[in-house]
Amino acid sequence: MNDLLGVAVLGAGHMGADHIRRIDQLVSGARVAAVADPETDRAKDAVAGIENVSVHAEAVAALDAPGVQAVLIASPGPAHEEALLAAFARGLPVLCEKPMVPDSAGALRVVEAEARLGRRLAQIGFMRRYDAEYLRLKSLLDGGRLGRPLMLHCTHRNVSSPPHFTSAMLVNSSVSHEIDAARWLLGQELTAVTVLRPRPSSHAPEGLLDPQFVLFETADGAVVDVEVFVNCGFGYQVRCEAVCESGSARIGDEHTMVVTSAGGAHEEVAQDYLVRFADAYDREVQAWVDATRQGRVTGPGAWDGYAASAVAEAGVRALEEGGRVTVELAPRPDLYA
Amino acid sequence: MNDLLGVAVLGAGHMGADHIRRIDQLVSGARVAAVADPETDRAKDAVAGIENVSVHAEAVAALDAPGVQAVLIASPGPAHEEALLAAFARGLPVLCEKPMVPDSAGALRVVEAEARLGRRLAQIGFMRRYDAEYLRLKSLLDGGRLGRPLMLHCTHRNVSSPPHFTSAMLVNSSVSHEIDAARWLLGQELTAVTVLRPRPSSHAPEGLLDPQFVLFETADGAVVDVEVFVNCGFGYQVRCEAVCESGSARIGDEHTMVVTSAGGAHEEVAQDYLVRFADAYDREVQAWVDATRQGRVTGPGAWDGYAASAVAEAGVRALEEGGRVTVELAPRPDLYA
Amino acid sequence: MNDLLGVAVLGAGHMGADHIRRIDQLVSGARVAAVADPETDRAKDAVAGIENVSVHAEAVAALDAPGVQAVLIASPGPAHEEALLAAFARGLPVLCEKPMVPDSAGALRVVEAEARLGRRLAQIGFMRRYDAEYLRLKSLLDGGRLGRPLMLHCTHRNVSSPPHFTSAMLVNSSVSHEIDAARWLLGQELTAVTVLRPRPSSHAPEGLLDPQFVLFETADGAVVDVEVFVNCGFGYQVRCEAVCESGSARIGDEHTMVVTSAGGAHEEVAQDYLVRFADAYDREVQAWVDATRQGRVTGPGAWDGYAASAVAEAGVRALEEGGRVTVELAPRPDLYA
Amino acid sequence: MNDLLGVAVLGAGHMGADHIRRIDQLVSGARVAAVADPETDRAKDAVAGIENVSVHAEAVAALDAPGVQAVLIASPGPAHEEALLAAFARGLPVLCEKPMVPDSAGALRVVEAEARLGRRLAQIGFMRRYDAEYLRLKSLLDGGRLGRPLMLHCTHRNVSSPPHFTSAMLVNSSVSHEIDAARWLLGQELTAVTVLRPRPSSHAPEGLLDPQFVLFETADGAVVDVEVFVNCGFGYQVRCEAVCESGSARIGDEHTMVVTSAGGAHEEVAQDYLVRFADAYDREVQAWVDATRQGRVTGPGAWDGYAASAVAEAGVRALEEGGRVTVELAPRPDLYA
Repeated sequence: MNDLLGVAVLGAGHMGADHIRRIDQLVSGARVAAVADPETDRAKDAVAGIENVSVHAEAVAALDAPGVQAVLIASPGPAHEEALLAAFARGLPVLCEKPMVPDSAGALRVVEAEARLGRRLAQIGFMRRYDAEYLRLKSLLDGGRLGRPLMLHCTHRNVSSPPHFTSAMLVNSSVSHEIDAARWLLGQELTAVTVLRPRPSSHAPEGLLDPQFVLFETADGAVVDVEVFVNCGFGYQVRCEAVCESGSARIGDEHTMVVTSAGGAHEEVAQDYLVRFADAYDREVQAWVDATRQGRVTGPGAWDGYAASAVAEAGVRALEEGGRVTVELAPRPDLYA
Repeated sequence: MNDLLGVAVLGAGHMGADHIRRIDQLVSGARVAAVADPETDRAKDAVAGIENVSVHAEAVAALDAPGVQAVLIASPGPAHEEALLAAFARGLPVLCEKPMVPDSAGALRVVEAEARLGRRLAQIGFMRRYDAEYLRLKSLLDGGRLGRPLMLHCTHRNVSSPPHFTSAMLVNSSVSHEIDAARWLLGQELTAVTVLRPRPSSHAPEGLLDPQFVLFETADGAVVDVEVFVNCGFGYQVRCEAVCESGSARIGDEHTMVVTSAGGAHEEVAQDYLVRFADAYDREVQAWVDATRQGRVTGPGAWDGYAASAVAEAGVRALEEGGRVTVELAPRPDLYA
Repeated sequence: MNDLLGVAVLGAGHMGADHIRRIDQLVSGARVAAVADPETDRAKDAVAGIENVSVHAEAVAALDAPGVQAVLIASPGPAHEEALLAAFARGLPVLCEKPMVPDSAGALRVVEAEARLGRRLAQIGFMRRYDAEYLRLKSLLDGGRLGRPLMLHCTHRNVSSPPHFTSAMLVNSSVSHEIDAARWLLGQELTAVTVLRPRPSSHAPEGLLDPQFVLFETADGAVVDVEVFVNCGFGYQVRCEAVCESGSARIGDEHTMVVTSAGGAHEEVAQDYLVRFADAYDREVQAWVDATRQGRVTGPGAWDGYAASAVAEAGVRALEEGGRVTVELAPRPDLYA
Repeated sequence: MNDLLGVAVLGAGHMGADHIRRIDQLVSGARVAAVADPETDRAKDAVAGIENVSVHAEAVAALDAPGVQAVLIASPGPAHEEALLAAFARGLPVLCEKPMVPDSAGALRVVEAEARLGRRLAQIGFMRRYDAEYLRLKSLLDGGRLGRPLMLHCTHRNVSSPPHFTSAMLVNSSVSHEIDAARWLLGQELTAVTVLRPRPSSHAPEGLLDPQFVLFETADGAVVDVEVFVNCGFGYQVRCEAVCESGSARIGDEHTMVVTSAGGAHEEVAQDYLVRFADAYDREVQAWVDATRQGRVTGPGAWDGYAASAVAEAGVRALEEGGRVTVELAPRPDLYA
């Protein structure tokens, strides 16, 4: 009974607080042992009512707190590299929210550190890999019934962008989910990227290039297109259609309750990713806890985090310079073979 | 070129005017040769711009007008019996709007008259038999792939009922379409009927039993249920699900343009049967003209009109008396074997 | 850390073993402390790998085992009454799979025992109340936007019935879910029931009246119809459409991944209730554990179990005798006001 | 009665024969007066049973045949320019199948000839403008409720390509429909085109670049993407999603009869454009006949035919050369203002 996995949660913002609640109330076999946030007040709020948890201003102090056996990193992206390296130094398994490290050079340093360690400790928070619909699509594609995938058509829409959201962030924050999903679904690296810039919506903040239409090419000649539109106004909508040699498959149409009234049939669209992917987050953390207690890493790893950063970086250059930009990846260490 | 079928249209109300426009503008191979309506002014309005057409106050005068080779009856139900018998007397092919004759005794007289004539002249306006979705369902059921049909679940909803619509009319006017559709889809007579009366909607006119839930049993032991709701407020909606031994099939979900906006996905619902079944009316009249020019009757006939009246009559009794009422049909003349 | 709720699971069959796995691996804040099954071997198999759990042949022994703080009853229905009364005697909170007690007389004894106790201990396993789609429908109906509900159209289909499934069990086992769902969604008791018996499917075992069409009337004049078809062959399908004064709402259409191939668009249908309602079972047990740890009962209670038994009993009589049977309920104790 | 519009049909192949049947049997107010095809035997077959029709080997002879008042051109594309100019010379109204003229230089000559004539005689067979779903989308966009269109996502799939279909024809034959539809829906010219070439499907004939992903930019900064896949194997599928500032709208999902059987829900996909767009062809020809009898041209005209050819030509260059190719259009004559 004393074997609940003690987790240190770094960051007690929107995402961190959600993970704290998840570990405390939903996930079997784990408990929140420590939390760190420079704003210690919100860290205290996030763990209110939880027993045996320590609160820290510094991430490193949380890693060293009593009872900590694993780390969940939900702090801002720029803090991730240091936190990951500190966890590696202590041999602590990590679940790190995306982006693993915002710049690909830093991401590569993490990959190299883990490779030197010689064993995998890091899982990256690409939670779509735990979504029931994505899993079904992945299973269909891997089964081979539809033949080789030729194209992925993706849609990624948000109601509105948060303050200070930049044109580059449509690619390196929003589309980073599609980058990982495409790599995972297709089992291939993305090799080139082109970004089209439609005339922006008048509902987008002044100066924001929104929507964008992002095109990826893959190592095996498939094409992935992504409409990213972060001020679409009506909902959070994530769809993916895989077009294969013998058929196509589409997920994300969200068909639950259909209400017919006032001249039409209506269906609500989720307004928030925490709603749309609530179950995926639950499964992701449960799966991470289960694997960690068994001393394993089963989810997307540091190499996936690095590859996503490298592709996103090329995407931002394609956005800013126009034209097609190729993606250059470092050699893949054997650890991730 | 002179072989356009000359049609006398009886009745120039909503339905009659629509058929006049249809024959004049859409249907190939026919023309409006005469029109009759006690309100001759609206008859004149309905044929404005059409050449070589005569206008009459009396139905019989229209039948005898020059160039008349066939009759389309769109006058009120109580006038149908006389008009049908007059057409039979002249050997004129007829397309008669439903109900063929409102009371089953009168309907039976029409059947007997046509049987005495020894050849079929009448087609009844059960236009759902010409709707693309119903035809697809019929073809699926007849093909046998799903096995024997066990149940039909039907929905029949209108935005609001016209003035003077009575509780009995939910059964003998609205549901009469489902009565014919069920007989046709299943290829069986309906043998008993029960009507449940939910507490009426507060949007229904005072005293109108709306909605109703009507249950039919068939000669071969299938069950047909019909929700009829003529003040549903939101649209004209006709659906049918056939549940068979090896699967089910559903039509009527109307999925054309999906609009996503303002927090949801929306789809318009047709507001009117002339919209929902516009193509069915076009096909029905074209098919009748084509068959008539070849001297044939291919659509639902007088027997179908009679059976629908008899079942509807039993339904009204079930509504008024409560409980289960069996349907008694006269023997079927050989002409309709 | 030592405050995990210790649960005794009675019954280690299909359902019991599933709950054991759920409590051990998925539910936060609980552990399996004891398990009872006359077949102790399968009880042992079900808890393989779990620590600190005792295995018993007798239910009562499990209730008295060390560490037991709550009971989950998943034994066959006839054993429920005794187990519930034993739990009450020990003041143990209970989650009891449906049916609470198969016969309404026994169910009433449970209600009376709990009423004498003066506090609620029992929650009944009507897990549809925890299904995301049903919850959405419930919330819509309670919100009042669509006005008063007039009708519920329900579908309950299974691929095939287990051995020894009887015609009565379509009503008192399968439809019991709809009985509870209708009472809960509408907030009314069911007052009468009629059962129509279509000619059975040739795929049903000899002598089984399958499908059936079951009609309920409610205290406030609504009508609830249920197609129950336990040998439909193609899948496990549960749907519900609520028709209200100002609109209708439908759940259960299952629209996740659409695959287009080989001449058509295809969507898989779940084959099993443990698949379709997996999340509902997870949420149900988590909610029960959470409430129990706080000393509360928040789910459907003994009164709901009794009412479902009483309605099901009337339904079986309606099936066997034909015609409409009214439901007689004992007065509702104040505890359930 | 003698005022049926006499139509000369040029070409009695697949498309021509279909139009002959349409005019003879479905369209009101017109008749087939003459037909021309170098293979006079198949021309004779196509008009079997039709009265007062002359058969010719030469298109020009058909134009001069007795009773000819209008022309429908369904001959191969290379023959169109001469036929159009001959019709103009005789003042005959024309409905010309797409492409109006395959090369933009020839198309421009037709535009200039009609401009010199000073009145419009030609309608081009872009029948999607007559499809109910496209019309609904056009009406929604024009209504402005969703704001300015930002992107169109289009899909154009065929079961398999006919013999001798070339990579260029994916753009200038298949995608030409999307070119016109995009120009019409958005009310803007297309100004640039890029073509991505995924690694071809193994089901495509050797050497055919199939599928392709074609990107258009418009004068007002919208982006139009088209997946064209002419050997997709499973059906004829045409979809279009318009993404606007305040919402999106999607057509082409085809939802008519849903069959649930054998473990899934299934919906047939049309196999052929003559099925999917049957109603659109009917409406197109009826509208053309109606307008022609009133001395008007209401459909897409020679300018639309020219613009489509010019864009398609740029598309083929983009396919062959890689990169982005801008579209250069001649000045638009006042006649088409």
